[in-house]
Amino acid sequence: MRFKPSYAPGPTDVRENVRLALAKKTNNPDFDKEFVHYYHEVCQKMGQVMGTTNDVLLLGGEGILALEAACASLTEPGDRVLVLDNGIYGEGFKDFVSMYGGEPVVLSFDDHQDIPVQQLRDFLEKDHDFKYATFVHCDTPTSMLNDVNQISPLLKEYGILTVVDSVAGMVGEPIDVDQNKIDICCGGSQKAISAPAGLAIVSVSEDAKKAMNDRKTPIASYYANLQIYLGYREKGKLPYTMPAAHIEALEVALDNILEEGLMAVYERHAKIANAVRTSIQAYGLSLFLETGRSNTVTAVIIPEEIGALTLQQHIQETYNLYIATSLAQYTDVILRIGHMGENAHFDKVLSVLTVIENGLRDLGFEGNGHLGQLFLDAYRAEN
Amino acid sequence: MRFKPSYAPGPTDVRENVRLALAKKTNNPDFDKEFVHYYHEVCQKMGQVMGTTNDVLLLGGEGILALEAACASLTEPGDRVLVLDNGIYGEGFKDFVSMYGGEPVVLSFDDHQDIPVQQLRDFLEKDHDFKYATFVHCDTPTSMLNDVNQISPLLKEYGILTVVDSVAGMVGEPIDVDQNKIDICCGGSQKAISAPAGLAIVSVSEDAKKAMNDRKTPIASYYANLQIYLGYREKGKLPYTMPAAHIEALEVALDNILEEGLMAVYERHAKIANAVRTSIQAYGLSLFLETGRSNTVTAVIIPEEIGALTLQQHIQETYNLYIATSLAQYTDVILRIGHMGENAHFDKVLSVLTVIENGLRDLGFEGNGHLGQLFLDAYRAEN
Amino acid sequence: MRFKPSYAPGPTDVRENVRLALAKKTNNPDFDKEFVHYYHEVCQKMGQVMGTTNDVLLLGGEGILALEAACASLTEPGDRVLVLDNGIYGEGFKDFVSMYGGEPVVLSFDDHQDIPVQQLRDFLEKDHDFKYATFVHCDTPTSMLNDVNQISPLLKEYGILTVVDSVAGMVGEPIDVDQNKIDICCGGSQKAISAPAGLAIVSVSEDAKKAMNDRKTPIASYYANLQIYLGYREKGKLPYTMPAAHIEALEVALDNILEEGLMAVYERHAKIANAVRTSIQAYGLSLFLETGRSNTVTAVIIPEEIGALTLQQHIQETYNLYIATSLAQYTDVILRIGHMGENAHFDKVLSVLTVIENGLRDLGFEGNGHLGQLFLDAYRAEN
Amino acid sequence: MRFKPSYAPGPTDVRENVRLALAKKTNNPDFDKEFVHYYHEVCQKMGQVMGTTNDVLLLGGEGILALEAACASLTEPGDRVLVLDNGIYGEGFKDFVSMYGGEPVVLSFDDHQDIPVQQLRDFLEKDHDFKYATFVHCDTPTSMLNDVNQISPLLKEYGILTVVDSVAGMVGEPIDVDQNKIDICCGGSQKAISAPAGLAIVSVSEDAKKAMNDRKTPIASYYANLQIYLGYREKGKLPYTMPAAHIEALEVALDNILEEGLMAVYERHAKIANAVRTSIQAYGLSLFLETGRSNTVTAVIIPEEIGALTLQQHIQETYNLYIATSLAQYTDVILRIGHMGENAHFDKVLSVLTVIENGLRDLGFEGNGHLGQLFLDAYRAEN
Repeated sequence: MRFKPSYAPGPTDVRENVRLALAKKTNNPDFDKEFVHYYHEVCQKMGQVMGTTNDVLLLGGEGILALEAACASLTEPGDRVLVLDNGIYGEGFKDFVSMYGGEPVVLSFDDHQDIPVQQLRDFLEKDHDFKYATFVHCDTPTSMLNDVNQISPLLKEYGILTVVDSVAGMVGEPIDVDQNKIDICCGGSQKAISAPAGLAIVSVSEDAKKAMNDRKTPIASYYANLQIYLGYREKGKLPYTMPAAHIEALEVALDNILEEGLMAVYERHAKIANAVRTSIQAYGLSLFLETGRSNTVTAVIIPEEIGALTLQQHIQETYNLYIATSLAQYTDVILRIGHMGENAHFDKVLSVLTVIENGLRDLGFEGNGHLGQLFLDAYRAEN
Repeated sequence: MRFKPSYAPGPTDVRENVRLALAKKTNNPDFDKEFVHYYHEVCQKMGQVMGTTNDVLLLGGEGILALEAACASLTEPGDRVLVLDNGIYGEGFKDFVSMYGGEPVVLSFDDHQDIPVQQLRDFLEKDHDFKYATFVHCDTPTSMLNDVNQISPLLKEYGILTVVDSVAGMVGEPIDVDQNKIDICCGGSQKAISAPAGLAIVSVSEDAKKAMNDRKTPIASYYANLQIYLGYREKGKLPYTMPAAHIEALEVALDNILEEGLMAVYERHAKIANAVRTSIQAYGLSLFLETGRSNTVTAVIIPEEIGALTLQQHIQETYNLYIATSLAQYTDVILRIGHMGENAHFDKVLSVLTVIENGLRDLGFEGNGHLGQLFLDAYRAEN
Repeated sequence: MRFKPSYAPGPTDVRENVRLALAKKTNNPDFDKEFVHYYHEVCQKMGQVMGTTNDVLLLGGEGILALEAACASLTEPGDRVLVLDNGIYGEGFKDFVSMYGGEPVVLSFDDHQDIPVQQLRDFLEKDHDFKYATFVHCDTPTSMLNDVNQISPLLKEYGILTVVDSVAGMVGEPIDVDQNKIDICCGGSQKAISAPAGLAIVSVSEDAKKAMNDRKTPIASYYANLQIYLGYREKGKLPYTMPAAHIEALEVALDNILEEGLMAVYERHAKIANAVRTSIQAYGLSLFLETGRSNTVTAVIIPEEIGALTLQQHIQETYNLYIATSLAQYTDVILRIGHMGENAHFDKVLSVLTVIENGLRDLGFEGNGHLGQLFLDAYRAEN
Repeated sequence: MRFKPSYAPGPTDVRENVRLALAKKTNNPDFDKEFVHYYHEVCQKMGQVMGTTNDVLLLGGEGILALEAACASLTEPGDRVLVLDNGIYGEGFKDFVSMYGGEPVVLSFDDHQDIPVQQLRDFLEKDHDFKYATFVHCDTPTSMLNDVNQISPLLKEYGILTVVDSVAGMVGEPIDVDQNKIDICCGGSQKAISAPAGLAIVSVSEDAKKAMNDRKTPIASYYANLQIYLGYREKGKLPYTMPAAHIEALEVALDNILEEGLMAVYERHAKIANAVRTSIQAYGLSLFLETGRSNTVTAVIIPEEIGALTLQQHIQETYNLYIATSLAQYTDVILRIGHMGENAHFDKVLSVLTVIENGLRDLGFEGNGHLGQLFLDAYRAEN
């Protein structure tokens, strides 16, 4: 299997010092008190990056485990749950809610715009009897960014707990769990954090803990049961053998972020994303979104006569580069350029855009000027 | 956090070539077809080591996820499940069964002996109306080895599906999933396989698949839902971002095993374990078990006036070595010497026994002769 | 120090499996007989790549140590040595000859063409009283390739021993030490072999050994004394502590080459180099050389109003890429694009040419069309 | 080739963070100004550990290159050089002196005692017409430690430059180049520094530079020519492609030392060495030396009826451990236990002594009590 650089919206490139940390011998993560202590230090560092003093848990699994754990831990049979939907992952929450016996109420919006806050307020005014609500910070299949800064506080006004999927958002887009009043914020190690895949991240607020403690029925899961994690934590233990090497690698990735500075990281993403969007449009291609364009990924509409899948395949074979298309109805429509975490660097994005330009030309599409050059110009104009 | 070699019954030492494989850049594990293909090759190699042509799945999580997934996927509300118990993990299955709505029937045996097959047969003669049964191959807290070669075929005779926890057994003790007629066999990467913690392993028989397909209610989980994994598999996809580096590291660990030869690996474990048991007894200490002593770990009773916890603590502080005690009621009674996978090497075990001898002497216990020397003599006598 | 990809003519990119081999624990390289045996196996594998069954030695130092060792070991006070010169390194040999008491006779040719064999023959016809002759296979400062296939056999016809500097040639350009009758062939680990810098390579023919044995004066060096290495070798020992990790890494690099196939590696270099030369000229830039253009590096004349140094500096600062200029009188004239070993891959060269185009444009130079695109077209035309 | 831990007096175990640093991608070490700057920072850090503000050079080669470079750079034909000899490496300097045309005057002392300073003073009183003198700080074949604190200042009193081989001394035994007035102090990366083999270290005083500048004849070497290194240094360049990965690894090793604290490192060596010597003698074996016992290695006399070579071979085969014997006339007499750098840790030395005890017993030698236990007792008595 030859290595192919990937500019999908995750997993992202993992920096050398993070990969090498994975190769280290680790202490016994089961019973060694020092390790448990260390685990909690890394959790806290994770919380620092997420802007929270809430308990943060690192689960031994992929980001989706965080989403399931949030729903499994909060949902009791019969609970009404508000599922905000303006993208593919947004709607997906309803399955988790149903699975654990809840009654999902899906509120759908236009897929081309971020969740309209006023419209949501109007809805809530009439119906706000929900135990919790779910929404996605960055819904990658369409590159949608929802305004976490307004939506979760608004829901909280109505006494609704919030579960936010920021797997593809955090670190690439500003998020401040405490200020944004997010009860359970979900992340994954392999997106803008640029650590290896293998860790799911959740922060749990006091309100969320209370909701779990007030349950009348037990949580119907072990591996996705946040109460178990929190209970072990209190006893200075861990509920199973943690992937110790991953914890150490995550810490190095977090140190990389903190060393660069969280604000600088956000700005890097913003500058890259702006230049990508400007150049894509100047070149003659269209963006999928009207508003809510995330700085972590850009969804580009590929002319029908070429097709996103054909372009992807061609680039993979000819230029040994992996770029993602989208999911479901958008699979052959959208090409997604991931520019998050370690992939959000000028030189890398310049080279991926050059390849896309060459790939398009090979398949008969000639845009205006040169995509790489347009990116370069746009990027420089920002400085 | 200074590195402390650990001789707990897992996680075991990870060989250098396995650790370095973790540091490699990986391809996109989400959509890259080559990666999916590669993933299945590694699954198959895992099956080869487990003695099965059944579908094998590698889940992104710890071994306990395999146990939960087996129970979550097989149990429907009201199902009677036979839980065989002669150790701490054996009994633990009843919680998974209850969690997913089943009715666990716990059949307990003496903790000091392996499951008496005739007794089980007598029981089954009277009551065998169970959807499935669970038992533990190697129950590490007491170092108990149950006879997988007899128990699962016996259960199968009565039309009972079997779920076997071989997390701490496989590779260290002979297991042949097909010959032993195990429907769902569970493993973890970090025990005798000596890969890093982070992968749960399950093999799924056709009968187990049929039981899932015949369910009247959906499986109440995503992350622990084996049907989802199998469904994605059929479509040539994976249900979430796999920890790609772990898959590659596991393959190297499996190659290490296959290169040495599975029979040679079993024999290495047996020789080490025999010499450990002989020398421990010759030195004047007692083994916890009467029968069913596993070759992967040895449970030693520590004289009450010293206490297993005190000895463990002293060895940790003075000799920078981690040795486990046990769980629950045995916490301060049993010291467990893990000798599985990469830890089952003569030079390593010699050094850990020498340390234990020194630790005991420091705390006032003088045995007969020298533990290291006794091990050496016993080991040589086997050759 | 931020990492900057380098497309200088060496050190080249080191493949991941080679770098990770460097991280391995090694056995004692001083006295361990197994290690000495292993060292010789790697030497032999090196010989296989160089096309020789002569003794091959790996010295613990940089490539230049190989050149010095050749001259130190062959030269006795008063020896006449023919130094063929059509480039900067070619002439440099005269210093080594003088340093060890020899009398260098420098035969200089035009720097823009490879050594004219007929002209050399004419010279030799008149004067061939030389103990040995030196020349450079690939003289990187000007990217000059000399015809090793003709020159060394010709010298040999006249009874002259040959010392060939193929540090920047071997593996990138065909060389067959035995067929080419080269007495001492010198290499370095960090060029087209793409192993880390730190090993100097020499092959020593029987004639060269005889010349050393026939010396009337001792060799005035230890570290650069080939007789010492050969003597230790015969005794199954090594003259000092070898950099064991480097030996292991070199072996992995050689395995990479042999797995791809030496002929395939040569062809890869040729295709890349042809496409670079074609596109550079089509774009409107000039190559420094008329004939003898090496497939391992291309020397491009940079328009005077820009200057090679300014371009290099600009590319380094703006695009985080390192490209070399040249040496001595050519420092500000020539830009050298290294495309050898692991750097001779289509996707890498495409990206470096795109950067050069952008860099030139930033500084006011607009060529014909697009350098990246021209490279792409030329590369494809070859297939 | 199976890995065998080695307790020879070098190369020593390389700590994990140092080995992993070797695996990192490096910048172009030829022309990149940042790299040259970095190289000099590491040189300075090396100087800090050696106690000097003199120029320190890292040469791309093994420690012996440092010795040769010192002699090559200082010696002019006819120069009288005083070679102090009380061990095998001490006498070896005379070859380097002769090789470069000097006239070595060997002053030999008893091999069982460190150089007697008064005797040396008496000698110098009568004859001190030497350009420079050489001696070995720690002469490993006999584990001899000479008093660098007295010898070099004494020589300096007589206007004699000093070349000290501290390859196996520095970091394990106190040395302060400036206070000890050493003109050229030589080291190697793979001994008590515990970095990988591959770098030779020299510090060069102003007096030594003056001596080189005052030469009437050129230095007859390139690779071992300190003037060339110093000249390039002044121009902000390097004389050849440095093994960049090694430089980075050395820095990590130096950081490890500085983090522990140089004094703490010396004390660790002293405590280990004292306990080794005490226990060896209590066990009934004899030390080779009467005085001058180095803290980096212990030379033990092995009873004639067993023989050091037989014991070494047996331990290697049976216990998979490498221990060195000695050289020349002492090859079958002395076993050398290396306890320097990363090998000078309590748990490692305990395990090597236990193995030696077992090995001796296997071969028929029974000492008093238990060597491991005696070491333990002696080690604890020191605290």
